[in-house]
Amino acid sequence: MFQIKGQTIVEIPEYTLECGETLYNFPVAYKTWGKLNSTQSNAFLICHALTGSSDVQDWWGPLLGINKTFDPSRYFIICINFLGSPYGSCSPVTIDKSTGKAYGPNFPLVTAKDDVRIQKIILDQLNVKQIACVIGGSMGGMIALEYSSIYNDSDYVKTVIALATSARASAWCISWNETQRQCIFNDPAYDDGYYYENGNSPTSGLAAARMAALLTYRSRNSFETRFGRNKSNDLFTAQSYLRYQGNKFINRFDANCYIAITRKLDTHDITRDHDFDLEKYLQRLKKPHLIIGIESDGLFTISEQELLGKNIPNSILKKLTSPEGHDAFLLEFELINNYCLEFLKKELPEIYESDEVFEWTEPEEFESMCSEVDNITNW
Amino acid sequence: MFQIKGQTIVEIPEYTLECGETLYNFPVAYKTWGKLNSTQSNAFLICHALTGSSDVQDWWGPLLGINKTFDPSRYFIICINFLGSPYGSCSPVTIDKSTGKAYGPNFPLVTAKDDVRIQKIILDQLNVKQIACVIGGSMGGMIALEYSSIYNDSDYVKTVIALATSARASAWCISWNETQRQCIFNDPAYDDGYYYENGNSPTSGLAAARMAALLTYRSRNSFETRFGRNKSNDLFTAQSYLRYQGNKFINRFDANCYIAITRKLDTHDITRDHDFDLEKYLQRLKKPHLIIGIESDGLFTISEQELLGKNIPNSILKKLTSPEGHDAFLLEFELINNYCLEFLKKELPEIYESDEVFEWTEPEEFESMCSEVDNITNW
Repeated sequence: MFQIKGQTIVEIPEYTLECGETLYNFPVAYKTWGKLNSTQSNAFLICHALTGSSDVQDWWGPLLGINKTFDPSRYFIICINFLGSPYGSCSPVTIDKSTGKAYGPNFPLVTAKDDVRIQKIILDQLNVKQIACVIGGSMGGMIALEYSSIYNDSDYVKTVIALATSARASAWCISWNETQRQCIFNDPAYDDGYYYENGNSPTSGLAAARMAALLTYRSRNSFETRFGRNKSNDLFTAQSYLRYQGNKFINRFDANCYIAITRKLDTHDITRDHDFDLEKYLQRLKKPHLIIGIESDGLFTISEQELLGKNIPNSILKKLTSPEGHDAFLLEFELINNYCLEFLKKELPEIYESDEVFEWTEPEEFESMCSEVDNITNW
Repeated sequence: MFQIKGQTIVEIPEYTLECGETLYNFPVAYKTWGKLNSTQSNAFLICHALTGSSDVQDWWGPLLGINKTFDPSRYFIICINFLGSPYGSCSPVTIDKSTGKAYGPNFPLVTAKDDVRIQKIILDQLNVKQIACVIGGSMGGMIALEYSSIYNDSDYVKTVIALATSARASAWCISWNETQRQCIFNDPAYDDGYYYENGNSPTSGLAAARMAALLTYRSRNSFETRFGRNKSNDLFTAQSYLRYQGNKFINRFDANCYIAITRKLDTHDITRDHDFDLEKYLQRLKKPHLIIGIESDGLFTISEQELLGKNIPNSILKKLTSPEGHDAFLLEFELINNYCLEFLKKELPEIYESDEVFEWTEPEEFESMCSEVDNITNW
């Protein structure tokens, strides 16, 4: 497990997953900012992306602060690490208490629907009665849309913001995930997933998987502008950059976890267990939705965002014209902040007109943690 | 080496590559259709794509025949296998006569400029005085543009057709190639390229590389239409399809060759050795060019085709609206045939008005060799 500063970890006694398996006494990790209001209805739930963590400051830092989207003086902000991720919640690197060994490749299939239901247990423990807004980008947006779907007929969730995502995993995402898993399987150190026991790790396979993933998060034009045909020593700088990013990733992630979470992504489909086609199902969603798409996104294309915006009745679609591709949801802070604030102030006037404004002091190291394009870790 | 039916293989005594190394007594393979005319000026040179061969019937079959683009009654059609490819010309799988062993990982870096100069030796032997048209798509288009560049001040090349390609390899192409090579390097059977000697082959690495490559040749929407979230047994059909394509590729290609030709692609830059920036250099090109771009192409984007069309003075840009992505240059036969014929009839009236029309009988197995979407081998 990789350490996240200031995280709370709770143990959940028992939960039966969609796949039929039951997890016992397993950890779930989360971080919070701000305070719950007197009506327990100001929760702002942030869902992290594929390889993200609960540490929102690290990847969406510029959106967090007084008068920003994630305003800790008005909202009780929470981000829960989803299962399968190595950042604190139960995953392949977690010790299975019944065996005394890490789950490894035996970690069961966890779906986005499971995450929503497990997170509800935590939110109940925290006395959250109502989620004012659930937000997420990419894989996080998939989970946000599951919240919308699961609580469609209840007032538990008030509003939904989904960025660069989809209501179900496309054949395109499934295919890229398959390719990346094959990169890991090919590494001789992978050993069918039982590599913890021999002290090994399929790092070169994981790095190659990351290189392919990173390219799907970017765009042809951003790479051309940034690298072109520049060389340093015998390598093109684009090559060196990819190798650097691959190596950086293996220091913060685990291969079995990567397999687990990409499989989770593949299963994502809000229409599963419902007798509607996707468009008809989207047309039944009742919450106000803000959909933010990126025009240069090659992974979750703008057409997928248009499908959401066109079909969800109470929705607004905003299109970012950033050249950065899919990763723009982690880069275009100002535009995203403006779109979110406009939406939130319209849909949640009770929050912005309330007298319950809590004190909030920005942590000292806060500003320096904001990501730059060069340091971005592509969560 | 993989066998190509009806191929001629000639031996070239000596050639010094751009990198400084000299190859001795090495093979070059080619196929021809039709006859050279009395003025030796009706050659139609076809440059194959990255993993292609001289067997044009196999991948551009529907363009070949009487009254089609590759009309063997009017043109002397020739396709020469480029170096580094395992289909007959000198490559890592070729025996180096000086050592008695396959070149393997010691095969030197061959560039597109080298290919043009080596092909000229063959064309001279065949008494070709003038190339009426040089055509290629993707990597083949890169070589076609090198012909345009190298013979800009001579009348050796009359016209150029380039599809879904670029005048120099983009950071995007370089990055995808790097990722694919890493897939091969990670395979334990790769053994630094010396796998022939132990009877091994990095097939799973090569298959993973192919899976990533294939996805860059296609598009999100074509995959969604074709596969969606369909399943067979426990796998998504998109997954099974990728695995099938990966396995199919390892039976027709070699990993060291794949490394050699992707490195060749990376080096492609028609401005190398010239003191001009790309736009200025393109503005100096003199031949008539037909540029065909594909709007859904994510690898050689339409903006790259627009750059060519905008800057090359005597050029026509046609845009295909196919949903198939980059591979449309191997699928949209009818549109491509029409665009090419229109261009050729305008630019080469002497060919179409000539009385020298040769007899041509279509080989019996010809029709059945035309590719279908399902059988396409993504050259």
